[in-house]
Amino acid sequence: MAAAAELGVGLIGAGTVGAEVADRLLTWAPALRRRAGAGLELRRVAVRDLGKTRPRVPPELLTADPHQVIDDPGIDIVVELAGGEEPARSWLERAIRARKHVVTANKVVMAAHGPELLELAGEMDVDVYFEAAVGGGIPLISTFKVDLAANQLERVTAIINGTTNYMLCRMAADGSTFAQVLADAQREGFAEADPTADVDGHDAAAKLAIMASIAFGARVHPRAVYCEGIRAVQPVDFRYARELGYAIKLMASAERTPRGVEARVHPCMVPLSHPLAVVDGVHNAVFIEGDLVGEVLLQGLGAGARPTTSAVIGDLIDLARSIQRQVRNRAPFTFDDIAVVPMDEVTTRAYFRCRVADRPGVLAQIFTVFGEEQVSISSAIQKEVFEGEASAEFVVTTHPAPDAALRRTRQRIAALEPVRAVSSFIRVL
Amino acid sequence: MAAAAELGVGLIGAGTVGAEVADRLLTWAPALRRRAGAGLELRRVAVRDLGKTRPRVPPELLTADPHQVIDDPGIDIVVELAGGEEPARSWLERAIRARKHVVTANKVVMAAHGPELLELAGEMDVDVYFEAAVGGGIPLISTFKVDLAANQLERVTAIINGTTNYMLCRMAADGSTFAQVLADAQREGFAEADPTADVDGHDAAAKLAIMASIAFGARVHPRAVYCEGIRAVQPVDFRYARELGYAIKLMASAERTPRGVEARVHPCMVPLSHPLAVVDGVHNAVFIEGDLVGEVLLQGLGAGARPTTSAVIGDLIDLARSIQRQVRNRAPFTFDDIAVVPMDEVTTRAYFRCRVADRPGVLAQIFTVFGEEQVSISSAIQKEVFEGEASAEFVVTTHPAPDAALRRTRQRIAALEPVRAVSSFIRVL
Repeated sequence: MAAAAELGVGLIGAGTVGAEVADRLLTWAPALRRRAGAGLELRRVAVRDLGKTRPRVPPELLTADPHQVIDDPGIDIVVELAGGEEPARSWLERAIRARKHVVTANKVVMAAHGPELLELAGEMDVDVYFEAAVGGGIPLISTFKVDLAANQLERVTAIINGTTNYMLCRMAADGSTFAQVLADAQREGFAEADPTADVDGHDAAAKLAIMASIAFGARVHPRAVYCEGIRAVQPVDFRYARELGYAIKLMASAERTPRGVEARVHPCMVPLSHPLAVVDGVHNAVFIEGDLVGEVLLQGLGAGARPTTSAVIGDLIDLARSIQRQVRNRAPFTFDDIAVVPMDEVTTRAYFRCRVADRPGVLAQIFTVFGEEQVSISSAIQKEVFEGEASAEFVVTTHPAPDAALRRTRQRIAALEPVRAVSSFIRVL
Repeated sequence: MAAAAELGVGLIGAGTVGAEVADRLLTWAPALRRRAGAGLELRRVAVRDLGKTRPRVPPELLTADPHQVIDDPGIDIVVELAGGEEPARSWLERAIRARKHVVTANKVVMAAHGPELLELAGEMDVDVYFEAAVGGGIPLISTFKVDLAANQLERVTAIINGTTNYMLCRMAADGSTFAQVLADAQREGFAEADPTADVDGHDAAAKLAIMASIAFGARVHPRAVYCEGIRAVQPVDFRYARELGYAIKLMASAERTPRGVEARVHPCMVPLSHPLAVVDGVHNAVFIEGDLVGEVLLQGLGAGARPTTSAVIGDLIDLARSIQRQVRNRAPFTFDDIAVVPMDEVTTRAYFRCRVADRPGVLAQIFTVFGEEQVSISSAIQKEVFEGEASAEFVVTTHPAPDAALRRTRQRIAALEPVRAVSSFIRVL
């Protein structure tokens, strides 16, 4: 390949991200050529609806058939921005088998099928870049793969879903309920009409599966990630959190342990002194702990057309530099057979909030359960007698214990006669 | 070069960082081979004092002559950890001319001579890696060079000197003076016996010169960086800062403007809502603004043997992967002739603290000067009459104005008869 070659780029998907990527490729061509060492020529764009007006994409490039992108011999790099599991996964596999390099922003495919696709790419001697799949423009994959490669990585703790972070910040700030904040977020465009993927934690779990796989060289399937969303968090919990010195965040965390990799997504009380406690709005932040580097925090906008385009084009530039040097599959990924530890066995801490009958002997009953489950108490608050009822609110945070013991404790307490309800159960960092 | 080659590594310098790097290379050999795709074999270590006991370096590798490292045909990569300008610069040049790849943690050399060395490396077809020269283990150079390459970078704002950040945090927390905190920091090992490079801002200026050069593709020499240290910051300034909603930080910032690159290091009032305001202790943090990515924050330990080793070995792994693929000088650096804007012409905001005679007409005199210099006022506080004197403390923050006008204002106010002193002059972010 000559030194100032043109590389053919094909796009699958021209929604908001695809249009932004096309625009940067077309309007920034000279600067990109200089940075990449080769021209990045947009040659074909596959879209679902050929009839739609797309002012930023030249109409002669459009096709309704993604195979016309994948199979075009003039296309060296396939950029997949369609999203969703199928047919995107099949397109990526087909592109790799056709010995095309691939850049994708598809977290669903990379989370569920990343290891196979990366290994296939190794066999076919092509590269798969996916910086845009996690954390928008925040440089995460390259940090794990290159910059921190000298480390034994120990733990990754992340706020990696902007929608839920925005919602929890709003709940903390103005005391609204989940339902109110969700309705607002949907109206303001921060949450989708079907918010399930965000508010139930699946989006964060997919991104965590990708990060854990790369950070620990383990195959962590999103189904193996323990996943609990934010629907159950109530306004009063933010008041107690503040009083106890915590913020409430939807935390995605993965850790290397002697028994395997732990990977979980759930609401979490984060000490106010922790850098992740102050990450607000639609920001994402990833806190990485390694044996040499200590702690590194990477923070930025986790989504949006422009940050995602930053990552996609950054990948294209890096790929072009490698291709220019006739390098293919520059640093293969390898995945060891490391078990994912079941949530039952993960050591966590928890915050319990219960409504209890306000009469003698109740606390003794509750603390007996904690004792029998060998869960020790870190702090306890009793207050807020509800009007007209002889009941009180009782809040406990625990020391670390196996998650199974904490959940058993929760069930056993809820079943005690003087306990009206265990209204909240939130892990504590 | 065969697929599982051994690469010969030579070290110049075996102080705390060098010993840690040697230790990682020796004790982590199988893991590093796997990650790098080649063995990284430590073959020679040049030290200043052969007589010193070095439990982590095999004695047969030691030499007192750096040229025995550089000229050894069995050494492919020279790792320079000696520090200081000369002879380190000459060693690096000699290594590059001998077509050795180079990894360095030397911020002084890279700041003052980085562009020449990088261009020479391009001619000689070898690579120079220097992630460890700025921000310890925080992945900065690679972020500028690769991950954000799709962006027009607009601004870099950084807390990049751990010693001064630690000192300013201590002054903010307990009201101590600069002299008290410096003495403590020296006793605790956070400041050197000769603290000049840190407290006068030169260390931060060198690191900023490196970041600005890479971020903007401009030759920014550390001498061209406006540089003001923290000696003049007084305890009372932290009280006013808090009252006005600011933290005081030693800020290193560089910005692309139509007239060239602005680059400056000085104490700065940072709004408490800014992510850099909460960076405390010996942490470093770099806030990068790009046209696509928006804002990215990278934070971690900016110094120390282990974080620096993380960066050095990360560079070695990346370099080894490239060498394995017979790639040399994978992504050459280029530097345009972009002017550095003189501080006089930089637009800033300022905080003035003056002691004035407590009598009618004084403020009118002061505000007349501001008006004549076309500096408009953002906030003003007058209070704290000093015991036994008819004087008051008067604090003003301004709107943006040319720095020359702000400094002229300062001088003219100090010369007014009723003004006892302009006790503080600190820029405002």
